[in-house]
Parts: sequence; structure tokens; C-alpha cells
Amino acid sequence: MKLYDEKMPAPNPRRVRIFMAEKGIAIPLERVALASGEHKSERFLKRNPLGQIPVLELDDGTYLSETISICRYLEALHPRPPLFGSTPKEIGVIDMWIRRVELQIGAPLSQVWINTHPYTERYCAMMGIARYPDFGEDNRKRLMDRLAWLDGEIAGRDFIAGDAFTMADIAALTIVDFAAFMTIPLPEDCARLKAWRERVSARPSASA
Amino acid sequence: MKLYDEKMPAPNPRRVRIFMAEKGIAIPLERVALASGEHKSERFLKRNPLGQIPVLELDDGTYLSETISICRYLEALHPRPPLFGSTPKEIGVIDMWIRRVELQIGAPLSQVWINTHPYTERYCAMMGIARYPDFGEDNRKRLMDRLAWLDGEIAGRDFIAGDAFTMADIAALTIVDFAAFMTIPLPEDCARLKAWRERVSARPSASA
Repeated sequence: MKLYDEKMPAPNPRRVRIFMAEKGIAIPLERVALASGEHKSERFLKRNPLGQIPVLELDDGTYLSETISICRYLEALHPRPPLFGSTPKEIGVIDMWIRRVELQIGAPLSQVWINTHPYTERYCAMMGIARYPDFGEDNRKRLMDRLAWLDGEIAGRDFIAGDAFTMADIAALTIVDFAAFMTIPLPEDCARLKAWRERVSARPSASA
Repeated sequence: MKLYDEKMPAPNPRRVRIFMAEKGIAIPLERVALASGEHKSERFLKRNPLGQIPVLELDDGTYLSETISICRYLEALHPRPPLFGSTPKEIGVIDMWIRRVELQIGAPLSQVWINTHPYTERYCAMMGIARYPDFGEDNRKRLMDRLAWLDGEIAGRDFIAGDAFTMADIAALTIVDFAAFMTIPLPEDCARLKAWRERVSARPSASA
């Protein structure tokens, strides 16, 4: 097995690293030079036609992309500790929270990033991607609203999907930390989310 | 168990119905009157704070939302026939295709729907949701481009994720059919996707 990846603050590469640290898994790494556009090269597009990292190359030569799918594959090989749940109910509830975190928090954040952040302006111009700053600002409001909602939802529990650390926490932490990198802090009054962030950031895996 | 749902052309409700038909599962149904806004009522928001259907009520009173998560729960209870894969590799590859279909095809389609379709204009005005028609049109182009990409990817196989019918086909069929409902047909030259659509539409589950 081989993981094509690059150490960067973006949520997806970091998710796989945290997941592997929690499981105690080590996989040989081949760095992909994003700065020089290697992920859009013909050679790399054979590994992932979408030109995104991370990509996991299996021993039979199959290429697996999509971060959550890579983690799900690794979970099937290394079930302990379970990060996607063990019982049918846990499996359903954890998956629901992964999706809620991605769709309610991650999706608006990525629209803020693409449409309003100075870092993406040059990249979008180069790639011919139109930006919609007003749409981006709308998503910033939506993001704040959804973070406040999530703060209410986690009342009375230590982690996003319940009383155990799961993939939903990895998904949420990488998004919240990337927002901080974009200078978007958690809303002032989200005391539960702040305590949760401290709790999960204190785990050794968070520095992976 | 009880399923809160409504028979409508939208992808999510239809996905659970097709999934249950493929598995031969029957679950008592309680219809949610979307037309009168029941899904936004205080009573329904206790079942799903996001105000979306479908929602599955488990026997212990837990509410499960997010369509794919509901199906994943049902798969854990009723593993045969497997629609999310059995081996680690199948599990990873099928999940990757579910995500690719949702992110590359479903996401742009939903932006076309929200930002450009006449049906959503009154709803957005009523809910105070700003629409961005130019962004919607950009997504229409992206959707066409991604459908052409998917057409190339499925060369040499009968189904989206390989040689067996899986959840990825259910995800894709419901999106492609909803696009058709929005009068967006498959691109003329996507012969493989057209043949795939005929193949999966011929299954008894497609009429669920």
C-alpha cells in the first residue's frame, strides 16, 4: 500500500493522517508536489482523474480516492478501535454526523474559501474559475449559523456523534481548524464547540 | 421502526425507497406533508433539526436522517444483497463512487435547481434565500462536463462502481432522473450513461 499525500492544512489530507494515528497504522507515503501542480499531471490523473489528494494505492494496484472512503477501507482492514461504529445504530448515527458536518459546516466553508479568500483569487483566475463574492459572503453567514446549531446539538456529550471519539470528530476538527487558518474563529458564544475543540486537539493524533 | 417520507421525485426520498425494494424490506411509512410545510414544524424538527426527509425512527426512539446513513443502517441489519460492498476493497470503492456521484454530479445539479429553476424561485423568495443565477449557470456547465467525465469512467462495466448494482447506482439514478424532471437530459453523446440508465431503470426497484 502507498499513500499519495502532502502535509498541508487542508482538511482532507489531515483527516487521513489523524485517522491513521488513531488506529496506529503506518503507510508508506509519496509526497505530491501541489505547488508545482503535480496533482494535475497526466501521471497523477491516472491515480485520481479528479486531481485531488489523498489517494491510496492498494497492493493490487487499485487507486482509492475520497478521504472518507480511504478511511472506511482502512477501518474494514483494522476494525479496532472502531471510528465508524460497530453496531447498526452506531454505524448509522456516526455516518449521519459525518454527513451533517460535511454538508452543513464543510460545504459553506469551502464556498467562503473559493469565492472570497485572497489565497484562492490567483488560483481561480489561472484556472478560469469564476468567483461569486456575494455568494461566498452568504455562505459565511450560513457557516456561522450552522456552527451555532452544532454547538446546541452536542449539548450533554463529549464528542460530535455521542460519547466516543469517531470519524465525525476528525471531519469536524479538520474543518474548524481550517476555518481558523482562514481567520474564521468559532463564534464567541459557542462554548460547547470550543470545549470540544480543546478536547479533541489534546489527543496525540491531532498533531498528525 | 417507522419511516417519515413523502412520495416525490426528489433524489433523497426515492433513494431509500429503491434501496428497500432491492433488499425486500418493508417499513411502516408516515407521510410528511411537504406542501403544507410540515417538515419545518416544531414537531418534525424534533425528528430532524435540519427539516429534511426522509427520517427513520428506530425502535428505541432514535431518529436517523441523511439518506445514505439510513441505507447504511439498513444494510447493517440486512446485509444481503450487499449494496455497500462486502470486502474492504469493495467497501472503499463503492463509497468512493457514492461520493463522486454526489459531489461531482449531485452538488452542481442542486445549485442549478436552487439558483435557476422556476420551481424554486417562489420558495427562495419566501424563505429569504438569495439566488445567484450566474453561479447556477456555471454549475449547469460543470454538471454537463462531469456527466461526460462519468460516461468515460464507466467504460467497460455495467454499473457505476463495477460489475454489480450498488448504492452508487441508486445515488446516480435518482440524480439523473431528477435532472430529467428539471428538463436537463443526459448529454447527447453519453452513450454509456444512457445504456446504464436503461439498465438500472429496468429493475423493478426503479419504480419504487
